[in-house]
Amino acid sequence: MQTTRTTPSRLAKRAHYDADTIHPILDEALFCTVSYVIDSQPMAIPTAFARKDDKLYIHGSVGSHFIRTIEHGAPVCISVMLADGLVLAKSAFSHSVNYRSVVIFANAEKVTDEAERMEALALITDHLIPNRWDDLRPSTDSEMRKTTVLSFSLAEASAKVRTGGPNDEPEDKDLPTWAGVIQLKTVRQTPVPAEYSANTNLPDYLQNI
Amino acid sequence: MQTTRTTPSRLAKRAHYDADTIHPILDEALFCTVSYVIDSQPMAIPTAFARKDDKLYIHGSVGSHFIRTIEHGAPVCISVMLADGLVLAKSAFSHSVNYRSVVIFANAEKVTDEAERMEALALITDHLIPNRWDDLRPSTDSEMRKTTVLSFSLAEASAKVRTGGPNDEPEDKDLPTWAGVIQLKTVRQTPVPAEYSANTNLPDYLQNI
Repeated sequence: MQTTRTTPSRLAKRAHYDADTIHPILDEALFCTVSYVIDSQPMAIPTAFARKDDKLYIHGSVGSHFIRTIEHGAPVCISVMLADGLVLAKSAFSHSVNYRSVVIFANAEKVTDEAERMEALALITDHLIPNRWDDLRPSTDSEMRKTTVLSFSLAEASAKVRTGGPNDEPEDKDLPTWAGVIQLKTVRQTPVPAEYSANTNLPDYLQNI
Repeated sequence: MQTTRTTPSRLAKRAHYDADTIHPILDEALFCTVSYVIDSQPMAIPTAFARKDDKLYIHGSVGSHFIRTIEHGAPVCISVMLADGLVLAKSAFSHSVNYRSVVIFANAEKVTDEAERMEALALITDHLIPNRWDDLRPSTDSEMRKTTVLSFSLAEASAKVRTGGPNDEPEDKDLPTWAGVIQLKTVRQTPVPAEYSANTNLPDYLQNI
């Protein structure tokens, strides 16, 4: 949703407010950064998360100072960035980055419904490792008591996207310098078993991950 | 440096305050997230950066609302995270992430010395694309006038690092579930030239990047 604080001061053409742009970025990114404030001091924590419909979930220890600071609804800014490519122009000034980023302004809601808590943990696990949750033993009551789950509305989310090649000034285009794009990609490497798991077969869902 | 706000509330064994841990993380990460506060509202912007000695540099447009908000020394929190691996345990609860992160509490200083401004822009360019700066035409006075360079002290920087395999509870270790680590890696793909650069050879420093 476009509001005063989700409207960028520059490059407004890169801003998007539709779920069709925002949701895929959140679903592809593995981690987000949660920014919050203590006594006028900004703080930031990178963490795992998951999205379902118009909600974003994070989890943490009930003892975490971070979680306890924001769980009662303090304002947070959640940011996600996918760096897609380095954009090399003929001048330093015209260099850029291809990226897809999302910023969410929201206030945490503590999830108390036990079914929603469990579903959120499954979503967070499967966001990082698709199909993992169903392969795990059920979480115990003790584990659930140690875990806080927070949800955030995506109502005030916005995306910024840059794609394409460099935009050099006309007078620079004939310079002999190479210009173009170097794409960046995050890859998952071959799974390496823990010593105590050496005799366990790698399941299908981890085969070409 | 260890201060109240750089001391984590949990997992203190993962915290580090030495340059030998902090500097390589900053040098490997391509982007940081700068968190700041406007009227009690946390804000966050992902951006490129570079480190030299005990300083971190960012740059931006002189017209950027973000830059103008922080350039006079408002407190910021700069965070960087390298996600090294997904740690799969036999229980959901023991899943983890291998990461190297840095958090810096600092106040922006606007760089006014023209030589330092130029050096910072070279550092930021070469941080993303090593050896790029020397291949570019000199920046013009007009380009320099449109650019603000900010520096941040690393005095109050701290790192958190998790490495290694999963730490399952003894009673879970014999479960038939696969456990281990899936390493994550960011790779640069083959450079693709801009249309107007099709006749320019790819320089040595971009071969095998």
